[in-house]
Amino acid sequence: MSRDQALIEYLIRLGDNALIIGQRLGEWCGHAHQLESDIALTNIALDNIGQCRLLLSEAGQIEGKNRTENDLAFFRDEKDFRNSLLVEQPNENFGHTILRQYFYDVFQFYLYSALKSSGNEFLSGFAAKSLKEVSYHRKLSSDWILRLGDGTSESHLKMVEALEYLWPFTFELFEMNEIDATLMAENWVPDLSEIEKKWRNEVEAHLSEATLEIPDTMGYKATGSRKGHHTEYLGFLLAEMQAVPRSMPGAKW
Amino acid sequence: MSRDQALIEYLIRLGDNALIIGQRLGEWCGHAHQLESDIALTNIALDNIGQCRLLLSEAGQIEGKNRTENDLAFFRDEKDFRNSLLVEQPNENFGHTILRQYFYDVFQFYLYSALKSSGNEFLSGFAAKSLKEVSYHRKLSSDWILRLGDGTSESHLKMVEALEYLWPFTFELFEMNEIDATLMAENWVPDLSEIEKKWRNEVEAHLSEATLEIPDTMGYKATGSRKGHHTEYLGFLLAEMQAVPRSMPGAKW
Repeated sequence: MSRDQALIEYLIRLGDNALIIGQRLGEWCGHAHQLESDIALTNIALDNIGQCRLLLSEAGQIEGKNRTENDLAFFRDEKDFRNSLLVEQPNENFGHTILRQYFYDVFQFYLYSALKSSGNEFLSGFAAKSLKEVSYHRKLSSDWILRLGDGTSESHLKMVEALEYLWPFTFELFEMNEIDATLMAENWVPDLSEIEKKWRNEVEAHLSEATLEIPDTMGYKATGSRKGHHTEYLGFLLAEMQAVPRSMPGAKW
Repeated sequence: MSRDQALIEYLIRLGDNALIIGQRLGEWCGHAHQLESDIALTNIALDNIGQCRLLLSEAGQIEGKNRTENDLAFFRDEKDFRNSLLVEQPNENFGHTILRQYFYDVFQFYLYSALKSSGNEFLSGFAAKSLKEVSYHRKLSSDWILRLGDGTSESHLKMVEALEYLWPFTFELFEMNEIDATLMAENWVPDLSEIEKKWRNEVEAHLSEATLEIPDTMGYKATGSRKGHHTEYLGFLLAEMQAVPRSMPGAKW
């Protein structure tokens, strides 16, 4: 695998994560229980869609086939998406959404912190630029975890249920393959097992402060997205997201 | 009608406009034909929902019955909403959305420019603060009108159709009643017929530049919102927007 090919795949992996979680959060736009939460979640969605534009547009440029970020977002099929299974999981309720977001924000925070010193100019610039917003997302979702986990008995119960559902999806965030190996050899990307250590330290301590226990999921770990195998939810999300652009390719509508 | 009562009603009128157009734009979140438009429309939605929070929260405080902006947004019924009929009209296609937005942005621009010198401290402060974002919205939708009106024959045709549909809704923006009379006597709010003159000057010149003619709508002018009479579309919008908060009043979910 060439260095350029690996970089394209890596950018698509990061870009798809940002796109799909942005899309999921966007589903809350106008549907939250408070205007304040509505605005906060939608702002996080927009930050991620902004990141996705930068990442996929760079991927398209390196590829050199004139594919724009819109082509990559709207004209690829499910099996070509490389987002982790975590971010495609449905919103369910506010607790699920916040926990999914919290897991992702802490992951993004440590990953981008490491990418800031990447030997690749685009990656280091992108990470430095995005880290400010990611730090803010992480602060927000961390606070929510405390409020919900250590809140009313109803909110606590919902968080326990969300944690049981989402925990098995956290492992896949840190899976590595030949893309990572190729780019690590260039000092362009970090070793994800190092990111995972920081992630588990922070998350486990924070959940414990929120009176939430890591569930016993019998060792089950969801996997598949690195090869384009997704859960049943991604197809529906893509169908909705891609319907308008696909019905009028090239149109300005 | 007391000065305070009139001010509450006026704030609700402005707040509902911002809320409902924000909601309509939010429906595009994740459904536009390009990531760039998606982000732009959602940003305008967020600015308006932010304005709505300030306006309805102030209305609730003057009212003194402990109603928050969330209570006012989510627990009033259709007949209590005071947004103009224009902003509740459905998205239809990108052209409809942009034209509705353009009409509203120019209206908001001249109204807030006048409110900046209101004798009421909240109104003048709010208008000064919001005018920067409103100017940006007006710039964006004005540019789009040119691109679409004077674009391809398909985009031109769609704009002609949108203009025919939306034009009759523009008159109601400038309707005045005893609320305006009471507040004009205090020098708190402008005469809307003055705003209308500026609006028609700007809009007619700009549409003409975009090769769009003011349609002959046989003098038909939609009206009703000042008394809480709305088109069939508002009920559906509110049902969707209010479902989550109403299903769990007071909850943190």
